[in-house]
Amino acid sequence: VTLKIAQYGLGQIGREVARFAFQKRKIEYLGAVDVDPQIVGRDIGELLSLDRLGISVIHEKESAPLLRQADVTIHTTSSRLKGVIDQLMNIAKAGSDVVSSCEELSYPFHENPALSRRVNEIAEANGVTILGTGVNPGFAMDTIAIVTSACCQEIAMIEIHRIVDASVRRVSLQKKIGVGMSKEDFIEKVRVGLIGHVGLKESAWMLMDSFDWSSGTVTESIEPVIADRHFRTEHFDVSTGRVCGVDQTVSGQVAGRRVLMLRLQMYLGAKSLDSVYIQGRPPLRMIFEGGIHGDAATPAILLNMAPRVAEASPGLKTMLDMALPRISG
Amino acid sequence: VTLKIAQYGLGQIGREVARFAFQKRKIEYLGAVDVDPQIVGRDIGELLSLDRLGISVIHEKESAPLLRQADVTIHTTSSRLKGVIDQLMNIAKAGSDVVSSCEELSYPFHENPALSRRVNEIAEANGVTILGTGVNPGFAMDTIAIVTSACCQEIAMIEIHRIVDASVRRVSLQKKIGVGMSKEDFIEKVRVGLIGHVGLKESAWMLMDSFDWSSGTVTESIEPVIADRHFRTEHFDVSTGRVCGVDQTVSGQVAGRRVLMLRLQMYLGAKSLDSVYIQGRPPLRMIFEGGIHGDAATPAILLNMAPRVAEASPGLKTMLDMALPRISG
Repeated sequence: VTLKIAQYGLGQIGREVARFAFQKRKIEYLGAVDVDPQIVGRDIGELLSLDRLGISVIHEKESAPLLRQADVTIHTTSSRLKGVIDQLMNIAKAGSDVVSSCEELSYPFHENPALSRRVNEIAEANGVTILGTGVNPGFAMDTIAIVTSACCQEIAMIEIHRIVDASVRRVSLQKKIGVGMSKEDFIEKVRVGLIGHVGLKESAWMLMDSFDWSSGTVTESIEPVIADRHFRTEHFDVSTGRVCGVDQTVSGQVAGRRVLMLRLQMYLGAKSLDSVYIQGRPPLRMIFEGGIHGDAATPAILLNMAPRVAEASPGLKTMLDMALPRISG
Repeated sequence: VTLKIAQYGLGQIGREVARFAFQKRKIEYLGAVDVDPQIVGRDIGELLSLDRLGISVIHEKESAPLLRQADVTIHTTSSRLKGVIDQLMNIAKAGSDVVSSCEELSYPFHENPALSRRVNEIAEANGVTILGTGVNPGFAMDTIAIVTSACCQEIAMIEIHRIVDASVRRVSLQKKIGVGMSKEDFIEKVRVGLIGHVGLKESAWMLMDSFDWSSGTVTESIEPVIADRHFRTEHFDVSTGRVCGVDQTVSGQVAGRRVLMLRLQMYLGAKSLDSVYIQGRPPLRMIFEGGIHGDAATPAILLNMAPRVAEASPGLKTMLDMALPRISG
């Protein structure tokens, strides 16, 4: 069975999705939508430094005919749910299912309850499935730990740790974690919500609900990581004492007891690693040596979930609802 | 929502399932069926060295009224599909969904195609869902690797390794891996199918189909592990030079290229470990330090999958079809 795929958003992640889609036997690639005047009208193959594809990037305003042909649209624009509602509406109205990298969409019921009801209404009214996923949130700090919990008779506490060497990641991620800033500037930008990884609380709530801790509370803290030496990357020159990344923690508590800790460290020069420790019966210690590389894994998950979303019933869904996630043909 | 659970088979795994079920808030425990004259008629609580429960083990021949009340029946009798078909039929006819530890049932389409069609017919005719699962097959050497593949754009080769210290496992498992035998006796027992872990080929085919390698071939080899020192366990006294376990390998090939290796080493004194290495984009190296303890994990998975099976559509299903496996309430 061939799936017809369109894209909404052709930034760095979107372009990786396109590259990946071109290799897939079971995908018919229809085209992409964006609003950036730098790329609208340009040939998608040329944009990816490949051969001319004969398909141009379409402006959002003229996207309906493309989206109406799509079985599933891969949506990769921004992190906040509020900013993507109209885009999701466009896609849903065209009758296409959606797999989105919007971090807040991955598990929005606790942090954005009103918006999540709105998205579910949009999906149900148009008979389409909407899923938010990616490597984080969507896999490394939630889905893989939840699947592992299937081996447990009981869980007293779970600790999930993701350490990412930001020097090998895309520039937009380096910006989001404050690389090159002063400590004071970082703290101010955190205060107004411009710095830090979006999605940790969503992962936490997916875990809390899965483990019957829905009555608990979730709290977050974000600290800068300070460079202890000079770093030079393709885009940044970071002196000793400047910010080289984030150290972000979300804790989950139930009845005064800490049951959940998610810690995300993303900074230049970090030794990448993912781990899940379950204190339970049996106890489990899972480690990804060298970590899961997000810039390769996120496009993979987005496209790999397309067949699962295509077969799912309409509505706002999460990774909890999907048939077993896996690589697709 | 409370699930009504019955059991079919109250051996060592079945008893662990019962213990686990008693702790669960969202499970109403109905009772258990067996054929062993040693336990039929006995109080289930007393059988587990707990308080009297007021529920006696029922003989298979009188099982219909019990099974008719069950939403899901946890079936734990034996490894071969041929030997459990009539039992599955009994449960399905009573209208109960089934989660079974029968190893050959976990992914029977290639090794037992005729029987798998028969099971699917039984399930569909009676409007019930039938799932085979457990820690292995069902999780450690298939499901967890398949979920991890969702992060991959391509997979060239996958190696899965499970090493189990058999000295801390149940006696029936120790017997199945030939502990205490002579090498000659072991080889003869392997030849007639009495020794060795059942399910490795089923895991292999679940992976082959998931990764679009269905056209390939799967081959198996079983070797004894010879004791290099004297071992004394609760049930066995093993001299140097006798068999202390198995070293079993399944290879998957496509077009002359090896794409899959599953290696299972279960022997007295082994250092337990589970690992999944994916050669792909991105490459992934996942390790469970200390391994996944099967005698705790198998009862957990069987019961944890009950809500997923209850919500699934009728038919013979596999872990690939289920909504995300996870601990249940």
